[in-house]
Amino acid sequence: MSRPIPVALIGLGGVGRAILSQLLSPALAPKFNLVLIANSRQSLSLPLPGSQITPANYLPVLEKYGTPLDVASIISVLSAHPDGNAVLIDSTGSDAIPALYPQILKLGIHVITPNKKAASGKDELWKAVAEASYPNSPALYYGESTVGAGLPLLSTLKDLVGTGDEIIKIEGVFSGTLSYIFNEYSKVEGGDVKFSEVVKIAKDKGYTEPDPRDDLSGTDVARKLTILSRLIPTAPALPEGYASVPTQSLVPDVLSNAQSKEEYLERLAEGDEYFAKVREEARKEGKVVRYVGEIDLVNGKVECKLGKYDFDHAFATALKGSDNIVSFHTKRYSPRPLIIQGAGAGADVTAMGCTSDLLKVYERVARLA
Amino acid sequence: MSRPIPVALIGLGGVGRAILSQLLSPALAPKFNLVLIANSRQSLSLPLPGSQITPANYLPVLEKYGTPLDVASIISVLSAHPDGNAVLIDSTGSDAIPALYPQILKLGIHVITPNKKAASGKDELWKAVAEASYPNSPALYYGESTVGAGLPLLSTLKDLVGTGDEIIKIEGVFSGTLSYIFNEYSKVEGGDVKFSEVVKIAKDKGYTEPDPRDDLSGTDVARKLTILSRLIPTAPALPEGYASVPTQSLVPDVLSNAQSKEEYLERLAEGDEYFAKVREEARKEGKVVRYVGEIDLVNGKVECKLGKYDFDHAFATALKGSDNIVSFHTKRYSPRPLIIQGAGAGADVTAMGCTSDLLKVYERVARLA
Repeated sequence: MSRPIPVALIGLGGVGRAILSQLLSPALAPKFNLVLIANSRQSLSLPLPGSQITPANYLPVLEKYGTPLDVASIISVLSAHPDGNAVLIDSTGSDAIPALYPQILKLGIHVITPNKKAASGKDELWKAVAEASYPNSPALYYGESTVGAGLPLLSTLKDLVGTGDEIIKIEGVFSGTLSYIFNEYSKVEGGDVKFSEVVKIAKDKGYTEPDPRDDLSGTDVARKLTILSRLIPTAPALPEGYASVPTQSLVPDVLSNAQSKEEYLERLAEGDEYFAKVREEARKEGKVVRYVGEIDLVNGKVECKLGKYDFDHAFATALKGSDNIVSFHTKRYSPRPLIIQGAGAGADVTAMGCTSDLLKVYERVARLA
Repeated sequence: MSRPIPVALIGLGGVGRAILSQLLSPALAPKFNLVLIANSRQSLSLPLPGSQITPANYLPVLEKYGTPLDVASIISVLSAHPDGNAVLIDSTGSDAIPALYPQILKLGIHVITPNKKAASGKDELWKAVAEASYPNSPALYYGESTVGAGLPLLSTLKDLVGTGDEIIKIEGVFSGTLSYIFNEYSKVEGGDVKFSEVVKIAKDKGYTEPDPRDDLSGTDVARKLTILSRLIPTAPALPEGYASVPTQSLVPDVLSNAQSKEEYLERLAEGDEYFAKVREEARKEGKVVRYVGEIDLVNGKVECKLGKYDFDHAFATALKGSDNIVSFHTKRYSPRPLIIQGAGAGADVTAMGCTSDLLKVYERVARLA
């Protein structure tokens, strides 16, 4: 066994806490040395003499012994760590830390993150991250959980591309929220539930953002398509990142003038007619409606839209609950695609995407001899 | 870019030729240095002065310049390669080379193989392989394509286990041949095609082994379950390897006395009544029949059997053609499993399992600094 790898974890929301819990578990604890935890206010260097950090006590300990968050000093501590090969896990939702990735990577600190901001943002930042990380520079950047949480989507795409397969089309249901909404709204067996009712149930179950328009805008799906596209050398360029992806919004025109979340939720039923028509048209063709993201290399298109799928299509029948499903159509996987399906959101599976990235870093820096 | 990694490829059947072709493609050629190719008779050290090996010319060149196959000398050449970190790809179907893996690995030679013999055979050999490879020894052993060809099944299982998830059950359709046969024989929409007819069509399409009993025995599925089980520390021990897995044979009792392949094929219809009854019973319950492999950690069982699945189960509707499908039920992926589906056989996708393993070796031995 090699020397444990120093890890700093910034961001202790739901995902950050699940990462902390996995890092401290028997499976991972021997391989990693947690040298720092931080939330948006405070950071704490570890080990703390006389005290053992656990998933149960980290917050009072951080509040009692922590110092005000200072990202610059965290970076310099990591880059000077005597064991080298330190890892920063950025589990914040921030824009500020992703903007620093190029600088962090250039210092030889590996970066692992579920934060989509750098990989889905403007080309300039993403190119700087790529330039400052492997194979262009020594430090590793991994973001498996930025798309589909713990599902092995990015690693599979990297393997397909890396071994010389030709990507023809990637299509999928990339939003757990929109998966749930359309799986309930447009079923193979029919049904006449109203769209507004399904959205309200999804909100009550906690499946949507506090303002459901944040899901229904399609922006999150566009971010994920951007991240995938950037791993395909032959994909169309997206200079403005996710903002360059044509994205069909599910906030209907009639509701676009809602001034507040409250007004929008109150008037939600005004959009029902539009969605009922879409569902009815699909049904006449023997199809269901799903909100999908598509990267079509044949036609050079990346887009997020409502699509119609035959009753026996995997997106219609096999897809359940709030699962994600992604089909990789390639030269080798043809005529039938390689399909990966499962929970694409949730703290534990998102954390797993990060800890499996950590294992990749460990394996790559562990001395084989 | 690091120095190219020396690779020897033994076995030039369909899969071996596809590996050769991928290795020589622009995606992989810069990373690897093909130092030797061999089939069951001859081997050839490369580069050959004045001649460039290609997927089109390798055979006449091998026949003209090759020397009689001598595995011992191949091993000593690889272990003495000045660049170190040499890789042996064993693409043979042989028992003899897998028996040498422990010795090969101990010499520091990495082993990549689609050959199931070592990983699914007796405990003694498998333990010796594990002992002689990472993390117990420096050399790497990878066999992604031994289960599901290029589908990321072993890597996903390793990530689940490695990050501390708890495996509850793995179930899947692991045989392309049996997938095709039951997808045609037992359909959601019904139908009364005879089992013997489906087997004959599968044979005519080249989906079965020359003697279909080699597929219908379930042995190949038992091998795959053995390989998966051995990656799960909490799974039942299989001291005799795949021979310890209770395996339902699809060669019915009435046909067990067939003396030859020809007699078996001629008398195939004698089994139709049995399968018709199984299909009918399932249909009464609103289910279809599939031949599945199951690793059930709750009940401590590993078995291959005919299973019945609801019409809206992924194994019933979403599964098509000769695809494999595998569900990982875990503590994190619960109540809905993580599902991976796609072609689980074929030269190009099996080769891809090997070349993606090669990329993993490359990344792990490439100097980051």
